[in-house]
Amino acid sequence: MRNVKLLIQYDGTNFAGWQKQKNGLGVQEVIEAALSKICNHKVKVISAGRTDAGVHARGQVANFLTSNRKLSLLKMKRGVNSLLPPEIRVTSVSEVSKDFHARFDARFKIYRYFIYSGGVVSPFRSRYVWHFPWELDYQIMKKECEYLIGRKDFRPFQARGSGVKGTVRRVIRAEIRREGNEIIFEIQADGFLYKMVRLIVGTLVEIGREKLHPGWIKYTLEGKKGYKSGPCAPPQGLFLWKVIY
Amino acid sequence: MRNVKLLIQYDGTNFAGWQKQKNGLGVQEVIEAALSKICNHKVKVISAGRTDAGVHARGQVANFLTSNRKLSLLKMKRGVNSLLPPEIRVTSVSEVSKDFHARFDARFKIYRYFIYSGGVVSPFRSRYVWHFPWELDYQIMKKECEYLIGRKDFRPFQARGSGVKGTVRRVIRAEIRREGNEIIFEIQADGFLYKMVRLIVGTLVEIGREKLHPGWIKYTLEGKKGYKSGPCAPPQGLFLWKVIY
Repeated sequence: MRNVKLLIQYDGTNFAGWQKQKNGLGVQEVIEAALSKICNHKVKVISAGRTDAGVHARGQVANFLTSNRKLSLLKMKRGVNSLLPPEIRVTSVSEVSKDFHARFDARFKIYRYFIYSGGVVSPFRSRYVWHFPWELDYQIMKKECEYLIGRKDFRPFQARGSGVKGTVRRVIRAEIRREGNEIIFEIQADGFLYKMVRLIVGTLVEIGREKLHPGWIKYTLEGKKGYKSGPCAPPQGLFLWKVIY
Repeated sequence: MRNVKLLIQYDGTNFAGWQKQKNGLGVQEVIEAALSKICNHKVKVISAGRTDAGVHARGQVANFLTSNRKLSLLKMKRGVNSLLPPEIRVTSVSEVSKDFHARFDARFKIYRYFIYSGGVVSPFRSRYVWHFPWELDYQIMKKECEYLIGRKDFRPFQARGSGVKGTVRRVIRAEIRREGNEIIFEIQADGFLYKMVRLIVGTLVEIGREKLHPGWIKYTLEGKKGYKSGPCAPPQGLFLWKVIY
């Protein structure tokens, strides 16, 4: 058996997320169907993490086992891309040791979230940003990010419907920066809870627009009474940016 | 009557072009429907030029007459964008003199065409480039562009089905440059024939891949026997970039 590692990009706009849902196509099943055809046997793909409906990936990582010994990696890459829709691309294919596991071996994941703060979103960016044209206090949001860093219980920034028990995660980077009319939030952690990034972004925006006061994230993480996360930011601004092994 | 000038961007992927067709929605009718609702009377929009199905616009210009005297330009801009799909945006609205005509007054139009020459196109660029992963002699293509410049009869670079009689146009700029894995062709002229840019790009690529010999464009424009344009490049790489008045 060969263990094959894939680097994957996808535009999540028209997918139900990484996993299939009752009402929509999952990125995973589309990739598995293509690989199964190429490898000539049923393929099961393991990814570094699931992404929700409408969320994009610039650096998703996955691996799968194949009994096909003949197929070269280059042919595998070309073959799978020829079968995939243009919204999904396998950008790199490599053979890895048998014990590599895309989910368990991931040391860190980096997500980016794009907010467009100008008046009109270009049609060429609208699938990839949250349009928030109202005033945001960027400096306050920048300062607030510091409270996210460290080994903390992120349970308040977890959406319902997740069965996860351990809710402590280590965030080693959380920054916000501006590029033209876009505000880009980047966060790196050893793991993320269900909808954690979007709940953090939603809270940061509430603080930036002065609906929640500065320090809100700090108090929420400390479990102070009456403090909870803001609303969940919409999916289209979010990218699984990179997975570090 | 007020004469209103619009700056418009659109992602042409899902449209039949600027004009409506039997089998598809035109950008024009979508904009007219939105403006008619906002202005409270039937609106007819004149654009600087038509674009074909699948072609994009970063700087389309249009104008229309309205008898509505109350509506501010800011409200008009916000109102129309709130009714338009995200694939179409009005980025600027201004009032102009009564004799301004978006088509007749256009002095120059600039088109850009994007060719992606790498192996795998990112899902975030695939709607906006022609994927051409085979080798292209970039220097030969660059040199060939020089033959396009000047006041010339571009009839050989006109697709059938156009009723236009005069086929002489003045090209004042035609350049090609590289940015990473993308080759960008830019052309500025006082007017363009039907599918002219895509036929020029198709010919340049045939020269770059050495299927047609250098000088092909020169001889074709001179009307030399046996010379004609290469195939028409696909629409998704083409942008109406700017209109100069």
